[in-house]
Amino acid sequence: MSDNTPEQHTLDGAYAVILAGGYGERFWPMSTAKQPKQLLSLLGDRSMLGMAVDRLEGLIPAERVLVLTSADLVEPTIAAAPDLPPENIIGEPMRRDTAAAVALAAAVVSGRDPEGAFCILTADHVMGDLDRFRDTLRTGLMLASAEDVLVTIGITPRFPSTGFGYVEAGDLVSSPALADAEVVFRKVTRFVEKPDQATAEEYIASGRFSWNSGMFVWSAAALERAFARHEPALAEFIAALRPAVGTDEFAAALEAGFEPLQKISIDYALMEKADNVVMAEGTFRWDDVGSWPAIADHLPADDDGNVVVGDAVSIDASNNVVFSDGRLTALIGVEDMIVVHTEGATLIVPKDRAQDVKKIVTELREDPSRADLL
Amino acid sequence: MSDNTPEQHTLDGAYAVILAGGYGERFWPMSTAKQPKQLLSLLGDRSMLGMAVDRLEGLIPAERVLVLTSADLVEPTIAAAPDLPPENIIGEPMRRDTAAAVALAAAVVSGRDPEGAFCILTADHVMGDLDRFRDTLRTGLMLASAEDVLVTIGITPRFPSTGFGYVEAGDLVSSPALADAEVVFRKVTRFVEKPDQATAEEYIASGRFSWNSGMFVWSAAALERAFARHEPALAEFIAALRPAVGTDEFAAALEAGFEPLQKISIDYALMEKADNVVMAEGTFRWDDVGSWPAIADHLPADDDGNVVVGDAVSIDASNNVVFSDGRLTALIGVEDMIVVHTEGATLIVPKDRAQDVKKIVTELREDPSRADLL
Repeated sequence: MSDNTPEQHTLDGAYAVILAGGYGERFWPMSTAKQPKQLLSLLGDRSMLGMAVDRLEGLIPAERVLVLTSADLVEPTIAAAPDLPPENIIGEPMRRDTAAAVALAAAVVSGRDPEGAFCILTADHVMGDLDRFRDTLRTGLMLASAEDVLVTIGITPRFPSTGFGYVEAGDLVSSPALADAEVVFRKVTRFVEKPDQATAEEYIASGRFSWNSGMFVWSAAALERAFARHEPALAEFIAALRPAVGTDEFAAALEAGFEPLQKISIDYALMEKADNVVMAEGTFRWDDVGSWPAIADHLPADDDGNVVVGDAVSIDASNNVVFSDGRLTALIGVEDMIVVHTEGATLIVPKDRAQDVKKIVTELREDPSRADLL
Repeated sequence: MSDNTPEQHTLDGAYAVILAGGYGERFWPMSTAKQPKQLLSLLGDRSMLGMAVDRLEGLIPAERVLVLTSADLVEPTIAAAPDLPPENIIGEPMRRDTAAAVALAAAVVSGRDPEGAFCILTADHVMGDLDRFRDTLRTGLMLASAEDVLVTIGITPRFPSTGFGYVEAGDLVSSPALADAEVVFRKVTRFVEKPDQATAEEYIASGRFSWNSGMFVWSAAALERAFARHEPALAEFIAALRPAVGTDEFAAALEAGFEPLQKISIDYALMEKADNVVMAEGTFRWDDVGSWPAIADHLPADDDGNVVVGDAVSIDASNNVVFSDGRLTALIGVEDMIVVHTEGATLIVPKDRAQDVKKIVTELREDPSRADLL
């Protein structure tokens, strides 16, 4: 436990780290290597990243919001998040998985503030009930600053989804840091992979399972201790990189330290192994927007169920999703179809095949002449 | 009967008149008011009109090939048929139907040569066996120059189409002009509208029915006589316009004379009424290309039955028709679909709804802001 009162510590020192390094293949052709999903404004005027930053308003000031992305996306990411200090956009020199990204975040946060706590957030989701979201983070940061725990944020499930992993949780967590807290924390029993439909229904019926959101809260110190126990290479990476934070040596130290790291998710590397994992019950609205149909669920539809961004006309066409910026799309007798235009390409795929968009991207990658479309 | 030998007269004086005034709504968005179907190169390097002109090579010289189109298309039509004298592209000052167009052709031909014979051709079809096509025209022109007949060209049907009208014909025509002719001419019993499937099958089984091609051969004089009897307004129009042919008065005379003409097809106005109609048995290949699927039948398909003009990639996509000039179209899990891109618009319609493309055009016409797409 810290000597500071939780409120003081949280308000003074908490960081937010937004993981925004994906390539967004499932959003091709709109999402490309140069302008991936998180930098696109698919849901209105703000990019997904911009919305992720906006959600932190009043909770964490811009100078303590960090964004981790891939090195080649640092410049467009800086442009997409103009409210953040440019040095807060950190480029991962090569693709690793979330465990390495979290360790990098821990090195930067603890390099700036050895007692710092931070939350790990994503730019891939749509959220509602933002006051409750911020309450959850605030309370989580207070708890993480006060206790040696790793907080995962579970989302109270709205339906038996087979598209998310689940967190099973049980006993209530008690801590002075949670006095008067409106957010409930429980001890985590286990993490489970995406279930089949029957299993998902059992999970929901049991009342013990929440969706695994991929959002976490912890102090850099607690995280480093946990890595030291379960994934020592990451603890060593943090310790080695920390002295370089804020110096001219940082980029070189990061590149040298990052390259040998394993490609492994934070769930596998740490959360499934650690015994001090607790879950915050996230009762705010949280939705994956991991595919074109998922995006469409967050956009208004016309009387025929067509979601149109841009310009379209239709006859006997229903439940389609059309992104038609800069051109007119005319649909006749078409149902449940996704149509996405960019300057150079058009994608046409039934909603129930949307997951195969990645396959097209894989195919196009094999042809160097297609590079400008990827 | 003419005093000239048929060969001499045909070779010396025959004209071809290509009706190329359509708006090609069924080929939207490619076909537009400014660049309609007949001026497009949908089937290769040559426009439909260019192919119609090419088919006459060796039969009728360019100076006697006339093209009738709408007044606003005269310039692009001249550009699309650079081998023809510009004065041979004649603009109809307003939309009338084929009877008026045929009468206009008769006025021009007879104004140039009172004994002239001519064939009426279209730019809407794909043809094969062109030697046989030219033989049919040549023999028809010989017969039309020698006898007081109206020749319609019937196409020996390849299947019981419900998409064409039919011509029923019976007794053989005999004429000195047909000595040694390889083309068979029969007296026409009646013209019938597009039949239902059962009726079409009866027609085919009977052996007496041919597809009504909309192609005709006649002398200007025979045509004028027939109009005088069955549609006197058209005979009067011809007589009034003829003196102006080749003069500066032509455009004004045409506009004044054309405007009051009825919108009526040549079949209704004349062919169904006249008793001197004969049919040439057209045994050459003749296909309507009146819709996107019909066009695709004349283009090569890949192993999955996809016809692609331009650039496309696909996964589990079959029997689609894609016109993707200037952009990549990616299809996943899509079947029997037509996708046509232009600079400003994209059409997506299942093959079996292709006839409804006209409805989209009608809808777009109601919105003045869409004018540049029409």
